[in-house]
Amino acid sequence: MAIIVNLESQREKGSPSALDRLTELVSDDLVQVNEVIIQHMQSPVVLIPQLAGHIVAAGGKRLRPLLTLASARMCKYEGRRHTCLAACVEFIHTATLLHDDVVDDSGLRRGLATANSLWGNQASVLVGDFLFSRSFQLMVADGSLKVLDILSSASAVIAEGEVMQLTTSNDTETSETTYLEVIKSKTAKLFAAACHIGAVVADRPQAEEDALQSYGLNLGISFQLIDDVLDYSAAQKTLGKTIGDDFREGKISLPVILAYRRGSEEERIFWRSRLEDLSQKEGDLEHAISLMEKHGALRDTVERARHYGAIAYDSLGIFPQSKEKTALLDVIDFCVNRAF
Amino acid sequence: MAIIVNLESQREKGSPSALDRLTELVSDDLVQVNEVIIQHMQSPVVLIPQLAGHIVAAGGKRLRPLLTLASARMCKYEGRRHTCLAACVEFIHTATLLHDDVVDDSGLRRGLATANSLWGNQASVLVGDFLFSRSFQLMVADGSLKVLDILSSASAVIAEGEVMQLTTSNDTETSETTYLEVIKSKTAKLFAAACHIGAVVADRPQAEEDALQSYGLNLGISFQLIDDVLDYSAAQKTLGKTIGDDFREGKISLPVILAYRRGSEEERIFWRSRLEDLSQKEGDLEHAISLMEKHGALRDTVERARHYGAIAYDSLGIFPQSKEKTALLDVIDFCVNRAF
Repeated sequence: MAIIVNLESQREKGSPSALDRLTELVSDDLVQVNEVIIQHMQSPVVLIPQLAGHIVAAGGKRLRPLLTLASARMCKYEGRRHTCLAACVEFIHTATLLHDDVVDDSGLRRGLATANSLWGNQASVLVGDFLFSRSFQLMVADGSLKVLDILSSASAVIAEGEVMQLTTSNDTETSETTYLEVIKSKTAKLFAAACHIGAVVADRPQAEEDALQSYGLNLGISFQLIDDVLDYSAAQKTLGKTIGDDFREGKISLPVILAYRRGSEEERIFWRSRLEDLSQKEGDLEHAISLMEKHGALRDTVERARHYGAIAYDSLGIFPQSKEKTALLDVIDFCVNRAF
Repeated sequence: MAIIVNLESQREKGSPSALDRLTELVSDDLVQVNEVIIQHMQSPVVLIPQLAGHIVAAGGKRLRPLLTLASARMCKYEGRRHTCLAACVEFIHTATLLHDDVVDDSGLRRGLATANSLWGNQASVLVGDFLFSRSFQLMVADGSLKVLDILSSASAVIAEGEVMQLTTSNDTETSETTYLEVIKSKTAKLFAAACHIGAVVADRPQAEEDALQSYGLNLGISFQLIDDVLDYSAAQKTLGKTIGDDFREGKISLPVILAYRRGSEEERIFWRSRLEDLSQKEGDLEHAISLMEKHGALRDTVERARHYGAIAYDSLGIFPQSKEKTALLDVIDFCVNRAF
């Protein structure tokens, strides 16, 4: 069965509003999360709130804390602990971003100057450490060893995933299986943990914990797959977004893996020289995209994302109908179909 | 009162054996700590145990875990939890070292190539994150929220101290008070936490917790003061150790602060150009040392270390006599008088 994926038309389906609807649904909780974040990034060492404020304000979608908030509410939780724990999740994510930008030597994130480009790598490493520690202090104040277990384990797995990514970087022989391990660890595990603790604070049975974990994990995988597609997406480019960062760094994402494996020996020589030796010149990115299109690599990566999205969808099957459930299900479409 | 400090002769007093005696006293426990460390730095991502093994094997004195072990035993603790928590302390310390070497762009630590110089800054940042997460996983397995509170708070303060040090680096106007804040946070706080949890596992009254915290904090301050002296110590140089790392980086330690404040305007111009602008040439380090000697800056830094050592000594006054108490008291002399 041939599947034609047109990112441009999907973007017009208005999927982004699924995220807006989720945000709207838990907006009161989200205000509290932001308050906890602002309050707990304070320090007498002024560079810390300055730098942390920069990345927290750049903020992005707050997708991970939103998942914690909506999961808890879907589980009929009525307390306030989830806002504090959602802030912990965001702190871990922010610490990871700070360290990532140092590791990747990035100058831009979401079109803004990265913290490391403004304050130096040193400050980014140390403020990342601070936010990470703060996150654990907040969890300790919450007092649940189970939550501490979930988030400390997730943090260890994230670091493992990042190291794994480092060891596979610039290696065109990387397999889809290895790539999947990397994105499960570095991205999807925190999505899983964010959702999981929603069930934990609500004191729900194991089956619901498992369901939310599975939802988060599979959503996270599809989220990262689409992220990797967007980095080569012509649709992105027409929207004025930067593309080609992964290509320039020689990052081996699934679109590359598929194009390489499906390519001729001549094409493989192209991939190796551009991504392993990083000897790149003008027009290379466009050629890379044309090879991906020729072999359906972007289309099939989106297809893989749909597969994990479908698993995420079915994971929530055991929960009764609710506004939160609908919003969480719609977020899957948002993740798979977003092209903004 | 004029106090003459002769590092050379003190080295011959055999103070190092105080650390050997402490190590000997808790040697069975220390074997277990090392086992926990080896076991928990494992990961299917091979670079992690490789890199962690490098820094853990370089190992050094294991001073911080030794403090946890001896503190717990002095408090008559008879269980095994302290070995696991001592490993947590060492993991936090190791993670800090990995990130420090990236921040300082160091090539050598204790005469060995640093992890970042062998595997790159990226791997050092990420493996540091991994060890830090592992440390929290171990604490969660131990199950004491109080210990988690102590060590997560210490970690946040360490990061704050490191950032503070970054913002004062290369600033010759840094005050002794600020410098003291930095070393309390970045070094002494973990010493304090390491000792504190010894009392916590033994379930001792608050006064004993406080006493051990105070012992650790003041020991840590004197330890760092002496570390900063050793970087300018001629005695070190005759032993074939590298000196002058702090000078080359423009680090503002107490010997510099004292020499700068006591110096003539001409001398201050020297300090500013060498440490702020880092315009250094051969013979500058020797000149810096001669200025420190002229103004008694090294001698008086040792004197300050003695002061904090004395407070550490008195902190343990409330504990009855024991082999462990004697060993902990002797370690103060080791820290103040070491010149190896």
